[in-house]
Amino acid sequence: MSSQPEHPTLLIPGPIEFDDAVLQSMSHYSESHVGPGFVATFGEALSMLRKLFQTTSSSSQPFVISGSGTLGWDLVAANLVEPGEDVLVLSSGYFSDGFADCLTVYGAKVDLLKAPVGGRPQLPEIEQALKSKKYKVVTVTHVDTSTGVLSELQKLSETVQRVSPDTLLIVDGVCSVASEEIDFDAWKLDGVITASQKAIGCPAGLSISMFSGKAMDVFKARKSPPASYFASMKNWTPIMQNYEAKKPSYFATPSPQLIHALHTALTQILTKPLAERFARHREVSDKIKKTVAELGLKQVAANPDDQAHGMTAIYLPENVKATDLLPKLAKSGVVFAGGIHKEIAAKYVRFGHMGVSVTDPARTDIDKAIAALKSGLADCGYQKA
Amino acid sequence: MSSQPEHPTLLIPGPIEFDDAVLQSMSHYSESHVGPGFVATFGEALSMLRKLFQTTSSSSQPFVISGSGTLGWDLVAANLVEPGEDVLVLSSGYFSDGFADCLTVYGAKVDLLKAPVGGRPQLPEIEQALKSKKYKVVTVTHVDTSTGVLSELQKLSETVQRVSPDTLLIVDGVCSVASEEIDFDAWKLDGVITASQKAIGCPAGLSISMFSGKAMDVFKARKSPPASYFASMKNWTPIMQNYEAKKPSYFATPSPQLIHALHTALTQILTKPLAERFARHREVSDKIKKTVAELGLKQVAANPDDQAHGMTAIYLPENVKATDLLPKLAKSGVVFAGGIHKEIAAKYVRFGHMGVSVTDPARTDIDKAIAALKSGLADCGYQKA
Repeated sequence: MSSQPEHPTLLIPGPIEFDDAVLQSMSHYSESHVGPGFVATFGEALSMLRKLFQTTSSSSQPFVISGSGTLGWDLVAANLVEPGEDVLVLSSGYFSDGFADCLTVYGAKVDLLKAPVGGRPQLPEIEQALKSKKYKVVTVTHVDTSTGVLSELQKLSETVQRVSPDTLLIVDGVCSVASEEIDFDAWKLDGVITASQKAIGCPAGLSISMFSGKAMDVFKARKSPPASYFASMKNWTPIMQNYEAKKPSYFATPSPQLIHALHTALTQILTKPLAERFARHREVSDKIKKTVAELGLKQVAANPDDQAHGMTAIYLPENVKATDLLPKLAKSGVVFAGGIHKEIAAKYVRFGHMGVSVTDPARTDIDKAIAALKSGLADCGYQKA
Repeated sequence: MSSQPEHPTLLIPGPIEFDDAVLQSMSHYSESHVGPGFVATFGEALSMLRKLFQTTSSSSQPFVISGSGTLGWDLVAANLVEPGEDVLVLSSGYFSDGFADCLTVYGAKVDLLKAPVGGRPQLPEIEQALKSKKYKVVTVTHVDTSTGVLSELQKLSETVQRVSPDTLLIVDGVCSVASEEIDFDAWKLDGVITASQKAIGCPAGLSISMFSGKAMDVFKARKSPPASYFASMKNWTPIMQNYEAKKPSYFATPSPQLIHALHTALTQILTKPLAERFARHREVSDKIKKTVAELGLKQVAANPDDQAHGMTAIYLPENVKATDLLPKLAKSGVVFAGGIHKEIAAKYVRFGHMGVSVTDPARTDIDKAIAALKSGLADCGYQKA
């Protein structure tokens, strides 16, 4: 039984519905950010992140910094790239393009390899690009929240390793961490940046990331100082290492309440094998995508292999407007998101299915949402052709 | 009666003790960051900030961004100063120097006017400096959390207006907003940056700031683009304006829970006249400082006119170590902070007295702390000479 008041079920691709215990942790009484109690909580949260990212290498470095997920882009752009260096951005939507914009702000020379809407750049063209120029970094958006397109990391990493082994592979995992498998060490990833409010299931306000020893070495070898103060790895690395070693340390005040909530969320995630969690997200996603197909609707992510398992971006039928459908869903107590990709914004809606709505067997969020979608479309006059 | 579990009373200069209703707001059920309910809450919080800062000018611009207070420095350094431009930093401690470091990262040429420990730069030397060079910006730390030194804003502003009227006057109010009076319009301030977790009384995780129309015009007249992506006024200004106009808008996901808590904290603050709030902080501060004097102890802030009203930095007696005293205070259920100013770190402790611990008549935090300080010093073998 939830202790939360009756409220519309939030099924947008983040923020997601949060577990009661996580929300209760947000109300933790005030503690010193350098006191032993909080230092232990923060240190444990950092260690748990290693498990979530599946990294056992002691040279991997986690960061948890107060900020939106977007701050992770600055962390990469201001620390791992120096002005004038080349970066290849693989674009599968709005958020990939945002990462490119951020890199440009910090002086990177960005080549954007952009797939048509609903697709993702393909390995042969990526290989060709990697051969054409020595890239310092290649970025990929694991799941682009604007399109629901899932990128394939393992084969991409193999390609980068084979063709351009010095290039750092950086993953925007804002909409994938904790809903899609990420095997940080085995896949030889150099960085994954994410946020708290999606599949990790902790309220928004934390930028969360993991970088490889190789990425940290590249950072240390910079010729110019980091190009940000608040997002400087130089300022944060010793702080993160101290917290994880349970030693008090200060650069800028962290948010004890958010860190407590993160600790609770990670503890819950790690009580079960991660493989089970990812399988459950796939299972629920398959059910939703089957319903979409049965309704005669198409997904923005055209290719079944490219479809995320924590969200579904659904093209609306010809005569149904998002501005008509979304309020009908809301009347049924379900909140979906509208479109955000500029080229198709009015033509689709987004259904988020991550975290407790998917993993908690006591919750009926997904069935409620599927029923609401069906009746909402019918109320809009839609019938399958 | 508090619904919080029994816990040590946190009387460090931030984070402070939080009111129950504020902490309960942190547990708010999940909402869409662009849904009408949350948009209204965020918009109201932004409007309430105008009242807290005492600005009625429609050209003043508030910002509330997920991040630590430190992010406010980046906001100033990346948006209001262009590489190579001159900035005068008035230093009254560790945090003033930090602001200087941040400005330097973004390419500012910083002149540091540094007072001896426990003091603050004086008007004649400030005037001289302002006459020596055309500064784009002058920064002042209203209360430096490392020393408890209070800077005088009104006369400083008059000097800047008279000697160098084009120069922007930017205030670091992290440790002053909501405990010290700030009359934004009347004092012709161009920017005040602060954080949520001090006298505003909302858990850490929000960078809060107010900029004048003049500062926004200087920003708009930049020749180079903003030097940060996440801390870019270009990215955030339309978002803040839209939220305040109750229109959904997106750049990076805000933290609905923290914004709810901020809304609750600001609502509580604004139920009473601000003058009453500041008078109460002065009254309690006077009592604490009187006790310190009666104990035969000195403050780090030497001059009574330079002493903050939301914190007191207290030099320890010759033979008393902070590492002995602080645990004794903790046993009495009171948490003070150690020193942070490098030159004197081991020689003093810091007592924070802001927010509900001071304003809520039902709370006995301050008397408890004074008693703990007296008995703690006695247990350390200290007797007034």
